[in-house]
Amino acid sequence: MKAVQLMKYDVAPELVDVPEPDVAAPFDIIVRIGGAGVCRTDLHIIEGQWAEKSGVSLPYTLGHENAGWVSAVGSAVTNVAVGDPVILHPLVTCGLCRACRDGDDVHCENSAFPGIDSDGGYAEYLKTSARSAIKLDAALEPAGVAALADAGLTAYHAVAKAARKLRPGDRAVIIGAGGLGHIGVQVLRALSPVEMIVVDRNADALALASDLGADHTVISNDDTVSAVLDLTDGKGAEAVIDFVGEGGAVEMGVACLRRNGNYYVIGYGGSINVLAIDIISTEINFIGNLVGSYNDLAELMVLAARGQVTLHTSTYPLTDFQKALDDLDHGKVRGRAILVP
Amino acid sequence: MKAVQLMKYDVAPELVDVPEPDVAAPFDIIVRIGGAGVCRTDLHIIEGQWAEKSGVSLPYTLGHENAGWVSAVGSAVTNVAVGDPVILHPLVTCGLCRACRDGDDVHCENSAFPGIDSDGGYAEYLKTSARSAIKLDAALEPAGVAALADAGLTAYHAVAKAARKLRPGDRAVIIGAGGLGHIGVQVLRALSPVEMIVVDRNADALALASDLGADHTVISNDDTVSAVLDLTDGKGAEAVIDFVGEGGAVEMGVACLRRNGNYYVIGYGGSINVLAIDIISTEINFIGNLVGSYNDLAELMVLAARGQVTLHTSTYPLTDFQKALDDLDHGKVRGRAILVP
Amino acid sequence: MKAVQLMKYDVAPELVDVPEPDVAAPFDIIVRIGGAGVCRTDLHIIEGQWAEKSGVSLPYTLGHENAGWVSAVGSAVTNVAVGDPVILHPLVTCGLCRACRDGDDVHCENSAFPGIDSDGGYAEYLKTSARSAIKLDAALEPAGVAALADAGLTAYHAVAKAARKLRPGDRAVIIGAGGLGHIGVQVLRALSPVEMIVVDRNADALALASDLGADHTVISNDDTVSAVLDLTDGKGAEAVIDFVGEGGAVEMGVACLRRNGNYYVIGYGGSINVLAIDIISTEINFIGNLVGSYNDLAELMVLAARGQVTLHTSTYPLTDFQKALDDLDHGKVRGRAILVP
Amino acid sequence: MKAVQLMKYDVAPELVDVPEPDVAAPFDIIVRIGGAGVCRTDLHIIEGQWAEKSGVSLPYTLGHENAGWVSAVGSAVTNVAVGDPVILHPLVTCGLCRACRDGDDVHCENSAFPGIDSDGGYAEYLKTSARSAIKLDAALEPAGVAALADAGLTAYHAVAKAARKLRPGDRAVIIGAGGLGHIGVQVLRALSPVEMIVVDRNADALALASDLGADHTVISNDDTVSAVLDLTDGKGAEAVIDFVGEGGAVEMGVACLRRNGNYYVIGYGGSINVLAIDIISTEINFIGNLVGSYNDLAELMVLAARGQVTLHTSTYPLTDFQKALDDLDHGKVRGRAILVP
Repeated sequence: MKAVQLMKYDVAPELVDVPEPDVAAPFDIIVRIGGAGVCRTDLHIIEGQWAEKSGVSLPYTLGHENAGWVSAVGSAVTNVAVGDPVILHPLVTCGLCRACRDGDDVHCENSAFPGIDSDGGYAEYLKTSARSAIKLDAALEPAGVAALADAGLTAYHAVAKAARKLRPGDRAVIIGAGGLGHIGVQVLRALSPVEMIVVDRNADALALASDLGADHTVISNDDTVSAVLDLTDGKGAEAVIDFVGEGGAVEMGVACLRRNGNYYVIGYGGSINVLAIDIISTEINFIGNLVGSYNDLAELMVLAARGQVTLHTSTYPLTDFQKALDDLDHGKVRGRAILVP
Repeated sequence: MKAVQLMKYDVAPELVDVPEPDVAAPFDIIVRIGGAGVCRTDLHIIEGQWAEKSGVSLPYTLGHENAGWVSAVGSAVTNVAVGDPVILHPLVTCGLCRACRDGDDVHCENSAFPGIDSDGGYAEYLKTSARSAIKLDAALEPAGVAALADAGLTAYHAVAKAARKLRPGDRAVIIGAGGLGHIGVQVLRALSPVEMIVVDRNADALALASDLGADHTVISNDDTVSAVLDLTDGKGAEAVIDFVGEGGAVEMGVACLRRNGNYYVIGYGGSINVLAIDIISTEINFIGNLVGSYNDLAELMVLAARGQVTLHTSTYPLTDFQKALDDLDHGKVRGRAILVP
Repeated sequence: MKAVQLMKYDVAPELVDVPEPDVAAPFDIIVRIGGAGVCRTDLHIIEGQWAEKSGVSLPYTLGHENAGWVSAVGSAVTNVAVGDPVILHPLVTCGLCRACRDGDDVHCENSAFPGIDSDGGYAEYLKTSARSAIKLDAALEPAGVAALADAGLTAYHAVAKAARKLRPGDRAVIIGAGGLGHIGVQVLRALSPVEMIVVDRNADALALASDLGADHTVISNDDTVSAVLDLTDGKGAEAVIDFVGEGGAVEMGVACLRRNGNYYVIGYGGSINVLAIDIISTEINFIGNLVGSYNDLAELMVLAARGQVTLHTSTYPLTDFQKALDDLDHGKVRGRAILVP
Repeated sequence: MKAVQLMKYDVAPELVDVPEPDVAAPFDIIVRIGGAGVCRTDLHIIEGQWAEKSGVSLPYTLGHENAGWVSAVGSAVTNVAVGDPVILHPLVTCGLCRACRDGDDVHCENSAFPGIDSDGGYAEYLKTSARSAIKLDAALEPAGVAALADAGLTAYHAVAKAARKLRPGDRAVIIGAGGLGHIGVQVLRALSPVEMIVVDRNADALALASDLGADHTVISNDDTVSAVLDLTDGKGAEAVIDFVGEGGAVEMGVACLRRNGNYYVIGYGGSINVLAIDIISTEINFIGNLVGSYNDLAELMVLAARGQVTLHTSTYPLTDFQKALDDLDHGKVRGRAILVP
């Protein structure tokens, strides 16, 4: 089959012929890819930034945001059948460790991550576990939702965690209304009547945020903090949900946080660097957020099927993978780039 | 009456004659002081470190850890009566703001803090609010519990918050078994069968922690992290409760934290400075902790009355306030210094 | 002033002249009534059903759902001022007991209930506590929201409690879309994207429920349970929110409940009568619901100001109180009857 | 191998020779039984009370509380190895349904229950799933802990759920200090400093409860409610944990419950029959409790290994199964009867 593989770090990946994956273990499934999201992380992988962390051996197939149709199942698989349209949770988890047994499968002690540390979905077929597959509602298509498998899931996980603590009358600031952020805006609107303030450097992103349900939008500049404080009776917001995490976003975000507030860290690149006395005297919290659990993804699919979360996508044939990567690198992708084999 | 007042920053306070406080507002109460804790914060106040933050006008009376007997009550007071032995929550709160109405009175929007921003308890009498008073169980004496009003309450608040998330089989690391920490050890033992690991630089503090119920003690040095990892199957602890917060404690503590773990910030002096990618890739949280609520103090008093939290104290006559401050400054106080008028 | 007082049980109340209430205690406020809701409980009070429970001495003024404008305040009142438009939490609470200090003021150990056990709001003026007053948003009028003070608050409290446990993909059944129920439908829609199934005997009520955001409506008859099971993959709903509580509703509702589901009891009149083995083998819960807290009411006012909860009302001059009571008794009130002095 | 099988309802089971179970599916494990608890449910099964509910085909092997050593494992098993001493969660769960993925495996949609609906552990060997096995700490022996697999797990699950809501100063009433109840007393003492009141008809059971950490014991008779109210300032307890559930226990227990309290239903036999008005006016909850989850069992094993939960057992050779059943039926078993092959 055709697959886009990284042969060497810092060299463009290639479309090559590789054997189709086979069912080996009882919970294995093979999925014919319907769409694979192109993510900024892929650019970082190509550059070698993840080499040490993932420990993957080259060559291997990229692609960690995948959806498609089940084409083969292992002997113990009961939850999906050949032909089912599915979205794939990005992790392959064991189901047996304490974390998995607690619904916290993202912290599985024996997980794999196709597209990061093993062959991914920039290909015609992908091997993963039945534990990762969620059947799609009839209203949804694999290529339309693939990017929810990782980017969307991360946004959902963080925003749903925040929403569980927010009450009507509270305020939430979302920093960054781009790829993840514009999903976060939709998720927050679906889950909570909280007063939502969206901050971004880009006026178009703010216009989109308004369309998607933000109550207020604030352009990111030197006056942002005072604008947010004006919108929050001078007290700051009960939650700051930071999809940026660099370039001054954290300092700005912390200044927008109310006493006893929660700062949700999603974007990275920068640091959290705060005096302990400032943390304890206002009793604020910094909450880390990784990708969501399997059940989180199932919940996000419900919102997608209800039309409460939608995603702009630009599809590319698998053979045009390089153009998709280049467009992403040059900021030319409208919405999310999806490779379709 | 006699009171110890700070006349000028960076000059030793003086024992002076001042008028006894009067009931003015309907919820005012006057308390005859039975014991007032001497706290490191008092040293910082004298040095002027809190001048700007508190905005207090000199001269004023020090002392923010107070217990005694009610000697007069305002017209609307129903919860305590003259003669009742009481411990005093350190804040005077309004009872009307949303935070107060949520049981989160520490974040009252209209609070005062006797001993910090108004006259405190290094005196024969103190004026505060009926909202701050908790009647003492017959088993307890004001001078014996005064130091639980602030130091103990802070430890209780943080540890009880941590305990609510801990399950049997989880591990908790307590960093620092000194003034606050040795109360934290007792509170954690009372609230949870979690496997408790206590870290301190001082072998005597660790011996005390063992007596108070720690499962393991680890001396703080360059090998501490590996010792803690050895005790936690190489995974780190579900909770790190940091009563130190400076001098390398945070870096050490973060290295002892498990994926998805919670870092409770209590000690201050240093910073939390962590790469955002390290926060999100392990999905850890940093949880700020201020002093506890009124109900927290009531719960701590239950533990004290049950004998599950005890405090070593050294009492000094009010007239010997300077010796108490000097002993504290020179590390000569065994347990907690208490002024008794 | 004019007031509608109950002179004797089982005899129609009378419009009489009584002295205006005075500020007596420091937290007292006097409110000029802008609207007072007429509630089925008033009919029950007149019939004497509450005589023993309330212990009120006749004559007294009816009316426990009140809103208006502050006309006088006690010496310690800081949260409202003369002229402020306010809605009144139905209870007068102490603010000092452990329940009040936990945000659970409905279980205050020293509360009064104007209109039930003391003079209420079928009058030109009402005396209550500053602790009960919530300032109205500029978008709201006292007569328009008065009925949210008790009926709406009860619905909000129960539904918000349910919503905190519901996730996308879960199902909730609301039994009864009448007075309280149609508020409950709006609250659930505002708080959660759960799949909402509304059951009622009345087709008009179901049509209204659809307009207000129900996903499915089911007429209440012998086939209701099977219709609900069909809508829930044969498994039942994660939550049943019962605003009826009599006439077979409970048995039907329990049959619609999923394993590990929560049954929210709001409507009364009947009994919960279930075999313990049926409770434990499916591990279901029955959750009681009284009126909401002060903060619940503040949150409901946020939803009202956002236009997410609206109420149909029919206003009557105070002098027409008997017509309002009669109309209610005969099922002729459209929406909620409001007396306006 | 030898196995005790039920051949026909209402006829004593027989010790017969049956084939040893084989590994068939990838997650199967075979366990050599070290101890199998004899439970009152076994008597009910023999009498046929579970015939319809379980749908099991006779003959089959009894025994649903099992511990032993792993003797064979399926191809996909990674969490235990041959020779490991293990306790077995009573259910065989799928790991794939939403409940399993939420840590709520007791509500697995595809579970089996060895000893109830398939062959159990009154035998030399038992087949179950690797998902059910928990490795034992070196301090524990299979025969010593077998009865914790179901009876103990049920007590742990309910008490741990209650403990999560209890604070110092709260009161909890445990009704019944027998088989499950005396484990519940130990679990509550390990998890919470709550003031524990134990009620039983049997003075010996109360003496044991005191030894195990109860703060107060109350003999069950006509004065029990007033005795409990005396111990709770006339307000009742925040939690009632009912291990009896019949013979007047529920009525007594509800009368001992405080406003806003939680009634934990574990014992069955009777009904919960309460007027809805009594549920809503005090806002009490009835909480169902089935057996605990796999992680609950892991936590209970931690308490057992720490010596915080111990169990009195009387062991019988497997061949004496009938004597064990008879002794149980006649109230002659001290602690819990355990069959040892």
